[in-house]
Amino acid sequence: MKSFPTRAIVREVGLRDGLQSIRTILPTARKCEWIRRAYEAGQREIEVGSFVPARLMPQLADTAELVAYAKRLPGLVVSVLVPNLKGAERAFEVQAHALLVPLSASRAHSLANLRRTPDEVIAEIARIRSARDASGSRTRIEVGISTAFGCTIQGEVTQQEVLRCMQAALDAGADRVGLADTVGYAGPGAVRALFEKARGIAGQALACAHFHDTRGLALANVYAALEAGIERFDASLGGIGGCPHAPGASGNASSEDLVFMLEEMGVHTGIDVERLLALRAQLPAWLPGETLHGALGRAGLPKSSATGASNPLASEIQ
Amino acid sequence: MKSFPTRAIVREVGLRDGLQSIRTILPTARKCEWIRRAYEAGQREIEVGSFVPARLMPQLADTAELVAYAKRLPGLVVSVLVPNLKGAERAFEVQAHALLVPLSASRAHSLANLRRTPDEVIAEIARIRSARDASGSRTRIEVGISTAFGCTIQGEVTQQEVLRCMQAALDAGADRVGLADTVGYAGPGAVRALFEKARGIAGQALACAHFHDTRGLALANVYAALEAGIERFDASLGGIGGCPHAPGASGNASSEDLVFMLEEMGVHTGIDVERLLALRAQLPAWLPGETLHGALGRAGLPKSSATGASNPLASEIQ
Repeated sequence: MKSFPTRAIVREVGLRDGLQSIRTILPTARKCEWIRRAYEAGQREIEVGSFVPARLMPQLADTAELVAYAKRLPGLVVSVLVPNLKGAERAFEVQAHALLVPLSASRAHSLANLRRTPDEVIAEIARIRSARDASGSRTRIEVGISTAFGCTIQGEVTQQEVLRCMQAALDAGADRVGLADTVGYAGPGAVRALFEKARGIAGQALACAHFHDTRGLALANVYAALEAGIERFDASLGGIGGCPHAPGASGNASSEDLVFMLEEMGVHTGIDVERLLALRAQLPAWLPGETLHGALGRAGLPKSSATGASNPLASEIQ
Repeated sequence: MKSFPTRAIVREVGLRDGLQSIRTILPTARKCEWIRRAYEAGQREIEVGSFVPARLMPQLADTAELVAYAKRLPGLVVSVLVPNLKGAERAFEVQAHALLVPLSASRAHSLANLRRTPDEVIAEIARIRSARDASGSRTRIEVGISTAFGCTIQGEVTQQEVLRCMQAALDAGADRVGLADTVGYAGPGAVRALFEKARGIAGQALACAHFHDTRGLALANVYAALEAGIERFDASLGGIGGCPHAPGASGNASSEDLVFMLEEMGVHTGIDVERLLALRAQLPAWLPGETLHGALGRAGLPKSSATGASNPLASEIQ
């Protein structure tokens, strides 16, 4: 029986992957409160936004301010998503600790979302690396291989193509790579198989798994990725996110449920799930009308939990 | 890396564990249609009801008729739940293939639900075994150790007490035992630890895992139980069930999501998930106003699935 890692990182991506698909524009002060309280709950990696044109994504127009705010919290790793060199240059300017470039292994998805082929994105990653090195910036370059388990447009995405893109991203100068199930197609069988192969190629540079819960398998997929040696997971408070084109689909793995599961398994996250749940309880007021996901937000902690029952419902007779 | 079993059984318990907590009384003809269509989808074990007093649970008053109907389907294993000897005698009369006696490892839960201590239930199991053998009945006696991972009334339930109850049930004459997370408290860490210990005691007589999805961990728990060698899982179509005393709590693991996950992992169930989803699509009309659970019912199958996209939403751009 394989043992699990003793520690794992849950990176909060709700402020980026969550808010980008939600119409409500959360005021900057609220986002800062979110970042501060997530930090106080113990989160030490937060993706605070994207450097994309504000006319395309006004929800994320305050990303530079958020980086500046978040960088004042000691020990917090502050990351941003960037689609291209222009965005990366802004990340260097604000001295984000890390930037994430999405590289879709699905050609059809890449063209639909970025109007670029995967190989054109790989060439851009090389330009980002050159610019980073030339500027003296210390921003870490991460590449997330998206649609790594299938694509809603083209259907199947082969393992071969995913691994080719990952290798090419490393060759182009990525410091780290991760695999993302952007559309919620992955199951634990595919996760274990692909992460094991990717680990064989990338070694410790393979440092992130990003799952969506569209088909209810995000947490089982985390389990499978843990077994393949992954110790860093993206997640979103209240599971926000999802896709505006797929009503009813869930977003990312819920941060609070993921932390609860990992801690239960003896995989320490450094995160206090009760404080995270208290923060999660703000979301209905902050994002009125949005569907929130995640089971703990509904059901509360078990009565037998070491942290006690935070929800009176959980102590009633079933 | 541990390999998974090549086959697993998904036992449908929606007609019992699901319907017992739903006010709507599903007509017998509808239940027969459910059984027939589940059978046509490939399900080969179905718990069709309970032998409890009809005044307590009018939803399940037609259990004898359902056993008679279901027994006409070749190769289908027809089981019923019984709380006591009286119920067991009815199961023998109608020649159910198997009966399930719930034995709560939580004393508080046992007293609240059955007005009996665990030891009194164990004594009843011995009487059921004697009656079965005296009657010449071939009904298999299964004991489900409920609240095996915690209890909403007393909180913690110790592994020691769960294993003591399981051993006592076997000593009293149970043919098989299983472990049930009746209230949705289990996480994969506890599941793996407890099932491994239970397997060490019961060997192949440990033959069922029963998870509720209250905290979103049912499928991750199945994964953990598979690793502990379990190959038989209870589940409920549309995840119906749950607890009338815990609003918002989910019911059992959803049959359709569980089958989808197992098949994706290469663990064959013999069940056609598309046919199961077609049956699941009837539930809103059959059980108006009931909250249904499970992700596949919302999101449909992935476009890349071998069985194809059954849901047009799944083919849109995300």
